[in-house]
Amino acid sequence: MQVIRAIQELRESIRTLRAAKAGATIGFVPTMGYLHQGHASLLEAARAQCDLVVLSIFVNPLQFGPNEDFDKYPRDEERDLAVAKDAGADIVFFPQVQEMYPKPTKTKVTVEGVTERLCGASRPGHFDGVATVVTKLFNIVQPDLAYFGMKDAQQVAVIEQMVHDLNMPVTIVPRPTLREADGLALSSRNVYLNEEERKQALVLSQSLRMAEELLGGSSASSVTPSQVVNAVRSHIETAPLAVIDYAELLAYPSLEPVESLKQVDRVILALAVKFGKTRLIDNTIIRIS
Amino acid sequence: MQVIRAIQELRESIRTLRAAKAGATIGFVPTMGYLHQGHASLLEAARAQCDLVVLSIFVNPLQFGPNEDFDKYPRDEERDLAVAKDAGADIVFFPQVQEMYPKPTKTKVTVEGVTERLCGASRPGHFDGVATVVTKLFNIVQPDLAYFGMKDAQQVAVIEQMVHDLNMPVTIVPRPTLREADGLALSSRNVYLNEEERKQALVLSQSLRMAEELLGGSSASSVTPSQVVNAVRSHIETAPLAVIDYAELLAYPSLEPVESLKQVDRVILALAVKFGKTRLIDNTIIRIS
Repeated sequence: MQVIRAIQELRESIRTLRAAKAGATIGFVPTMGYLHQGHASLLEAARAQCDLVVLSIFVNPLQFGPNEDFDKYPRDEERDLAVAKDAGADIVFFPQVQEMYPKPTKTKVTVEGVTERLCGASRPGHFDGVATVVTKLFNIVQPDLAYFGMKDAQQVAVIEQMVHDLNMPVTIVPRPTLREADGLALSSRNVYLNEEERKQALVLSQSLRMAEELLGGSSASSVTPSQVVNAVRSHIETAPLAVIDYAELLAYPSLEPVESLKQVDRVILALAVKFGKTRLIDNTIIRIS
Repeated sequence: MQVIRAIQELRESIRTLRAAKAGATIGFVPTMGYLHQGHASLLEAARAQCDLVVLSIFVNPLQFGPNEDFDKYPRDEERDLAVAKDAGADIVFFPQVQEMYPKPTKTKVTVEGVTERLCGASRPGHFDGVATVVTKLFNIVQPDLAYFGMKDAQQVAVIEQMVHDLNMPVTIVPRPTLREADGLALSSRNVYLNEEERKQALVLSQSLRMAEELLGGSSASSVTPSQVVNAVRSHIETAPLAVIDYAELLAYPSLEPVESLKQVDRVILALAVKFGKTRLIDNTIIRIS
């Protein structure tokens, strides 16, 4: 496994590896590091489908707001490299901020529509930062397939819209959220939680299961979107430390409001909830039958 | 020479031609058609440097304002194909609007800084449209080199900034403006001019030469930016039909205002002037010695 920190060196390394095997496919897993089993599952999917697997680790300042956790976002290079190697990465691209942004970027990629609600509303500029850095990384790595976890469902929607609109020559592969045995979605930010917050954070996955039952059960035809959201909110509020940022039921994949469940095939229930200083997100996509 | 109208077919054709010759380089000339000798010179430069030359012809609605000339922009497919063939194009990509924008794009590429003045100020949204469509075309063609005429100097600055900021894997090759024998810069829009407008339009190239003399002559060290701009404006105003949109002397390539000529290496004198309904642009880049 090669660890590469310079863009030019990465380009040359990929060119050499591509030249060695005509028609070789490149699978790419862009991350912010502090890798967990969810990231490993993306690498394993890439390993199974592609000739060459490239992982990037870059905590992108452009997608953090001024009062967010850029500086204290968890980092552990040594452990990350061990996880990457175990999961079968061929190349780890590990640039410094100076390498990715030698000067502040004057160019931005913005996506309208799918960014209006959820994290797009509560983290202004966040998805411009995501779309811009993913465009940069795609242009540097030039992957055939790129793998993203569905815990960040809105991020997947933004990137799929961008790839479509800008005719980017890459296929996006969304992969399911991985969870702890008790249901908590894996996240690099889980490390911030103290014992009590960690316990109470289970209301997120519990309320997703509750929504799935409400919308999949025998009374599904009579339930309304606001009833589902109210039930979810009530359950989250049983956790005294939980402060809801958003809890929304939207059409999927458009991420538009749902007036009536009769008009949609699929919905997403998406949550962002703070426990102390830690903001967690989770979601489930539910087929309406 | 192949004429291709579908994105998918273009991708396959380029893949086939690339596969036939390892390490083949692709030169790309994006245009809005109604080709003149300036476009031909871009194709010839690409022909001299690259294995495969791709021309695109697409009048991009996204870069026209609501009161601009999108609908009546001149088009002549038959003549364009003859010019392209003569100049050595291998592939002409000629998509319809529906092929490039099956739905209105939700994704835009925006470039700050170099877009603030000149055409960026007088044509709001124009360079977002340019940056977005050039990104799409680059992603479709995946060229090694792309050729642009310096008559659109601000466009070149925008694209160079974008390619740098987004790490696009392409080298931009700017090429000099071509002119009629009497000095008028070649432009597809010259066809709009009536006989009298055509005659008076010579004040543009004349005033560029005047500025070059003022800034290159023996009195260059004592002249100020505003003296140069005033002399240019006065000369343009000798043409009764001329209506100045802008006449600016800016630092090049930053396109920032120039306080003193002692602080810059190069300046651009950039003009946009209307004759009747036709808006013409022209510019010259002057080295300050």
